[in-house]
Amino acid sequence: MSETSDLLAAIAGTGRDTVRGGYSRPVFGPAERELVEWCAGELDRRGLQPETDRNGIVWAWWNPNGAPLEGAVVTGSHLDSVPGGGAFDGPLGVASALRALDLLRERGVDPARPLGLAVFPEEEGSRFGVACLGSRLLTGAITPERALALKDPDGNTFADVARAAGFDPAGFGRDDEALARVGAFVELHVEQGRGLVDLDAPVAVASSIIGHGRWRFSVHGQGNHAGTTLLEDRRDPLLAASRIVVAAREVAAANPGTRATVGRLQPVPGGTNVIASRVDLWLDVRHPEDVVTAAVVAEISRRAAELAAGEGCTVEVREESFGGTVDFDPALAQRLTAALGGAPVLATGAGHDAGILASHVPTAMLFTRNPTGVSHSPEESCTDDDAELGSVALADVLADLLA
Amino acid sequence: MSETSDLLAAIAGTGRDTVRGGYSRPVFGPAERELVEWCAGELDRRGLQPETDRNGIVWAWWNPNGAPLEGAVVTGSHLDSVPGGGAFDGPLGVASALRALDLLRERGVDPARPLGLAVFPEEEGSRFGVACLGSRLLTGAITPERALALKDPDGNTFADVARAAGFDPAGFGRDDEALARVGAFVELHVEQGRGLVDLDAPVAVASSIIGHGRWRFSVHGQGNHAGTTLLEDRRDPLLAASRIVVAAREVAAANPGTRATVGRLQPVPGGTNVIASRVDLWLDVRHPEDVVTAAVVAEISRRAAELAAGEGCTVEVREESFGGTVDFDPALAQRLTAALGGAPVLATGAGHDAGILASHVPTAMLFTRNPTGVSHSPEESCTDDDAELGSVALADVLADLLA
Repeated sequence: MSETSDLLAAIAGTGRDTVRGGYSRPVFGPAERELVEWCAGELDRRGLQPETDRNGIVWAWWNPNGAPLEGAVVTGSHLDSVPGGGAFDGPLGVASALRALDLLRERGVDPARPLGLAVFPEEEGSRFGVACLGSRLLTGAITPERALALKDPDGNTFADVARAAGFDPAGFGRDDEALARVGAFVELHVEQGRGLVDLDAPVAVASSIIGHGRWRFSVHGQGNHAGTTLLEDRRDPLLAASRIVVAAREVAAANPGTRATVGRLQPVPGGTNVIASRVDLWLDVRHPEDVVTAAVVAEISRRAAELAAGEGCTVEVREESFGGTVDFDPALAQRLTAALGGAPVLATGAGHDAGILASHVPTAMLFTRNPTGVSHSPEESCTDDDAELGSVALADVLADLLA
Repeated sequence: MSETSDLLAAIAGTGRDTVRGGYSRPVFGPAERELVEWCAGELDRRGLQPETDRNGIVWAWWNPNGAPLEGAVVTGSHLDSVPGGGAFDGPLGVASALRALDLLRERGVDPARPLGLAVFPEEEGSRFGVACLGSRLLTGAITPERALALKDPDGNTFADVARAAGFDPAGFGRDDEALARVGAFVELHVEQGRGLVDLDAPVAVASSIIGHGRWRFSVHGQGNHAGTTLLEDRRDPLLAASRIVVAAREVAAANPGTRATVGRLQPVPGGTNVIASRVDLWLDVRHPEDVVTAAVVAEISRRAAELAAGEGCTVEVREESFGGTVDFDPALAQRLTAALGGAPVLATGAGHDAGILASHVPTAMLFTRNPTGVSHSPEESCTDDDAELGSVALADVLADLLA
């Protein structure tokens, strides 16, 4: 074990998903709230006073010199997970932030600027369908009206769920005051691919996040009895949806560099002996060039309409989110690389709150090696040593930025 | 409104599914239990003493002459529903049984044999995957060991759920004593196709139930991040599953008279930004000739293995249930037809508890017209007049059998 791993060990039992494996920690659910409590306790033990702002973001400040908070250096990540996710996506960034603070103090760093630690809610978008919801609300990248109307899989609105979690729905929305406190943002995250494994290095600096969107396809057919309805009388939306999933792969394969995924698909009502009346499926598309992403989605949508019509069904396509490719601040990335004595620089296909903040403040990311290269899965991994090396690298970078 | 509709009106608010529409009344859930309570209350109001046997079947006896129960005439149906099902599939048969009892009494029928009213649990198999579970347990068509180990979508075993509902798991299994009381069984059910609409008749007698089985396909792949995993590195079980759904339709279409349906499909973990690690899908296949059903399933399984391998996945296929084509007792069907003055005779593709009981006792069914022809859907329908005509027909038939 290392100090960083010890921090994570305290939450290893929280939000385990016995059906899917791994962890399910949806935002504002009991497991995610328990993790936020845990983080608040850890901040408290370090003499910091965590505060949750009106967008549900937790902030705490290490400011021994009582400097104004505006323009602080902020680090942090998120504690929510995808359903059946790994142990590191999110929590590693939070644990590393805590550990980096300890290291800065051990080294006797005297910060010229305050250091902020932050935890963002609903980074995954697993519950309400829009990734990075907390940072989008903070920066105005989503309107509070749209956010409050988002629904979780059980049909509860974000407004109702947030209210039940103790938030005032009227408080959500762009917060220039909170944003002004962030002079630079550095997020550490477990790597979600094999870049560092192939380079045989423990830590990398991020160059960019490739553009990423989600589209919801609702295929409408005719619910009916599986035994009494002849094939020729059917309008089966699950058959149409299956053809759309196959078409999405074909269109993606025809456009090199595209990642197109359907990982969530729900037949309604979903009975074994029932032809579905509707199928909802979510298409996730990413490409370094936003124009290619748009063309891929347009072509999949065109084919979806054709395939649905072929089965007497209709399809509605709705964009749930889109963010173009984000290049992180090159000067900041260079400064981090230098502070780490020449760490490798990698692009990533995964979205992060850092990608949202990057349009507003100088932002950077560090990645910690993941031996399996697998993420959003129980197989996501990080050795104890690498977790600690990540925290040390984060401390190195923060020390440089705080000087 | 008619008297039969009035009975159904009392339960119109129970188990409504606000997400899927219609009703979700899974066995041993609060809604289905409330309906069983309602039925017990109606029996009680008629001076009958409902008893629930060790397999969860409710029985009540109209036996004014105190005859031995062995060889009684029994009618009834079920109160559980598919997810998002209609108002009539099951409850119409129960309401018609109650109304038929009232009519027999109004007519002053003096029964030579007792009349039994019965309600069977888990007819749909929507919760534990095996249709007609109550009648299968009663007749020994399923072993109690297998039944008790069945799991619902939340991972709860039938044993645990039954225990929580007040049943002794050790009590489930073949019950020759209960079965000996059934001299003849007549189930009334809403029609689940357009047979009676096309014939312009309110009630039909059943000739047969076409053979019916369910197979669970589990496609195993590699869960991973939707953004960071290149197409060529994927082993995506949802892509393979989609190709299997398409193949199932193709194989069914190549074998005339086959009904093959995938209405339930679950990616695990089911996150938008997650390549699934596993997909479970359920294939429902029915054909009048059992040998064709077997051949269709074998061919779909062969193609599924091929399609899964093409995406680096594997597939397991498991039969969850199978019942061959059931021809109802021809003499009994003829007697019903005569009692109804020459009602039409129809086969059905839908399974029923009557189909299980038919291997043990003379069994018959009546169908009441469904103007939409749609079933297992909120659009399932039955007019007030037809509901009453169905009850009258059931009373006519029972009067004949009880004489």
